Amino acid sequence: MVFFMALIVKKFGGTSVADADCIRRVAGIVADDYAEGHDIIVVLSAQGDTTDDLIEKAGELNATPSRRELDMLLATGEQVSIALMAIALEKMGLPVISLSGRQAGIRTNSDHGNARIERIDVERIKNELDRRTIVIVAGFQGVDKFDDPTTLGRGGSDTTAVAVAAVLHADRCQFYKDVEGVLTCDPRKVPGAQKLDEITYDEMMELASLGAQVLHNRSVQMAKRYGVELEVRSSFEPRKRGTIVKEVTNLEKTRISGVAKDTNTARIAIIGLRDEPGIAFKLFRVLSKEKIVVDIILQSIGRDNSKDISFTVAKSDLDAAVTALENQKQALGFEKLDVSDTVAKVSIVGAGMMTASGVATMMFEALYDAKVNINMISTSEIKISVLVHEEEADRAVAAIHRKFFED
Amino acid sequence: MVFFMALIVKKFGGTSVADADCIRRVAGIVADDYAEGHDIIVVLSAQGDTTDDLIEKAGELNATPSRRELDMLLATGEQVSIALMAIALEKMGLPVISLSGRQAGIRTNSDHGNARIERIDVERIKNELDRRTIVIVAGFQGVDKFDDPTTLGRGGSDTTAVAVAAVLHADRCQFYKDVEGVLTCDPRKVPGAQKLDEITYDEMMELASLGAQVLHNRSVQMAKRYGVELEVRSSFEPRKRGTIVKEVTNLEKTRISGVAKDTNTARIAIIGLRDEPGIAFKLFRVLSKEKIVVDIILQSIGRDNSKDISFTVAKSDLDAAVTALENQKQALGFEKLDVSDTVAKVSIVGAGMMTASGVATMMFEALYDAKVNINMISTSEIKISVLVHEEEADRAVAAIHRKFFED
Repeated sequence: MVFFMALIVKKFGGTSVADADCIRRVAGIVADDYAEGHDIIVVLSAQGDTTDDLIEKAGELNATPSRRELDMLLATGEQVSIALMAIALEKMGLPVISLSGRQAGIRTNSDHGNARIERIDVERIKNELDRRTIVIVAGFQGVDKFDDPTTLGRGGSDTTAVAVAAVLHADRCQFYKDVEGVLTCDPRKVPGAQKLDEITYDEMMELASLGAQVLHNRSVQMAKRYGVELEVRSSFEPRKRGTIVKEVTNLEKTRISGVAKDTNTARIAIIGLRDEPGIAFKLFRVLSKEKIVVDIILQSIGRDNSKDISFTVAKSDLDAAVTALENQKQALGFEKLDVSDTVAKVSIVGAGMMTASGVATMMFEALYDAKVNINMISTSEIKISVLVHEEEADRAVAAIHRKFFED
Repeated sequence: MVFFMALIVKKFGGTSVADADCIRRVAGIVADDYAEGHDIIVVLSAQGDTTDDLIEKAGELNATPSRRELDMLLATGEQVSIALMAIALEKMGLPVISLSGRQAGIRTNSDHGNARIERIDVERIKNELDRRTIVIVAGFQGVDKFDDPTTLGRGGSDTTAVAVAAVLHADRCQFYKDVEGVLTCDPRKVPGAQKLDEITYDEMMELASLGAQVLHNRSVQMAKRYGVELEVRSSFEPRKRGTIVKEVTNLEKTRISGVAKDTNTARIAIIGLRDEPGIAFKLFRVLSKEKIVVDIILQSIGRDNSKDISFTVAKSDLDAAVTALENQKQALGFEKLDVSDTVAKVSIVGAGMMTASGVATMMFEALYDAKVNINMISTSEIKISVLVHEEEADRAVAAIHRKFFED
């Protein structure tokens, strides 16, 4: 798509603005697009490791600072980025203004550290754009009803970019990353990884949840809800078309959009559960009470009127899950737990994949050829995941990728 | 004076909050006063060299950034300080909240980089104090009618402290410095320097303008206008009484409050000016057009119906002054300029000094004994200044101090 006089939101992460040279390079990208006649809003993260450095400074004084004060502290990071970017664009003789989350009208609830955007008062941004001013907005932050700075938590700057694009009906929201777009696989692991031209929101979210962390799911979800067209571009090749993320892609054929690996997973097998109604409900209630999210679930018939249930959790939740289950051993009435944290989840993602025959077969064939043993299998509308041994995961990814993309 | 349940504003400079240890020490001082039952407002500067570092970062990108964006950048410095201080006080289990200039209701005009406080909306601070919360306010900053951060320029944090103390009718505004109070002389130069118990606003301002930069004149002026009692204390001996600055001091006898030296001065002598009406006016108009502030002025009769006028300017204005005068040489009709930048101004300051006989005589006697040659003399209600050779200035200060304070 070619835009004439479009409104474009461009988001750059912390490494893209880490120092003066980086900032000048981003300013150049912005200036080029502005020169083509577009209205430009730039959303920035804090420079490099600034946020971590600030958290460390707070930690020296207090291991458990209030989230309100931590937000006061962290909100300065993006304010520095946006002011410096504006100063760099002024140097190029361009009309520009930087706006903190508050000045940009980003109103949130008071859940400090993980605030939700409630509305955006766009008056100020609109006025600036009307004057053909380039608007630089601080990502990751807003202000609550008490007029206190808040931060949006993980993926916050991406969320800011999508939210601003949504309320202003921007023509596109571009994310500049250190990759050329969304790839079919991790390029550090699979040399044949290919850039996708287009991908749907759902596929993007599946890929993200599988460890291919290009865009945070929260922002993709919001983009889907408000129909904001996203584009992932390389900050090193800014003129090159990246990957478009939208509701429906133009490709009609069933396709696989990527292969991903997630090693942040552990498997728990509960052996010898009583086979009675409601036992699964009781079991998973124990875990949800502890806020443990369960991923793949597999149930199998055991011996002697008992059954086994296996499931995966995030590695960081493993100990808590085991403790919670052992505490309820009597109530749940199981024989024993079998735990493994040397597993990895390997998945293929693709829209409409499950309706096409043969995709699962091709995947399992690839794994069989590569002599990778499958522990568990899970499927959804746009994803097939298998649990394999951690040490076999890379081999599994490479084999599947070869089968679908390189053969 | 002993305060029962007073409202105290405490201001700490950048070196007092430079790192975690410093912040903890200040937090201890604040906690002690809070424990005595006082309501406490703390005004802080940015940590250590933060402001200079930020200016340098901007300078890498643009030698002449807009003041608006520079203020966006600089305002982050104090926000970091106040958040960290709040986090340190939280660790001690105390109720505390940090407020940026904007959150504290400090409304200024839009003269970025040198903004004037127009009013303070005290609602938020009052509400917090009512709940017995310690309020930490960012110095040096406010917000203008466009909701953009502004900075107050030189001495800005001191000004914030006095302004907040004024509108809230604080019982005292305490400045913690790296000296034990206002001294009669620079202790690095004169070992016999003594701490003053009390000093008037006017004396304080004269001392400040003479290079004894304890408090910025802008803040002292404001304190005088609104009758805010100031106290200069040592941050190293926080429990020790410092110097009180107020309208009228209790001491009735004529006294000298201090001896000060200012080496940021240069002398210009205009030789052979036509002795005609209005020549002084024309001369100083040339300088005021260039915004050059003239200090001591001396006029003397020259030869042949001409006269000489000598005056001092700040060293940084010397070149501009000489250029401006040379450009108008024809119009002004003088013979030549004689310039010296190796001079220093040495002054004694004291309320009601000029009405007491003998003070000037004592000063000149001290200089005579020390064999210091006097270039120019200037007097005011509370000050006597002499211009001497730069190299003799320290000897002059020591001699005068000995005469008045140590004999």
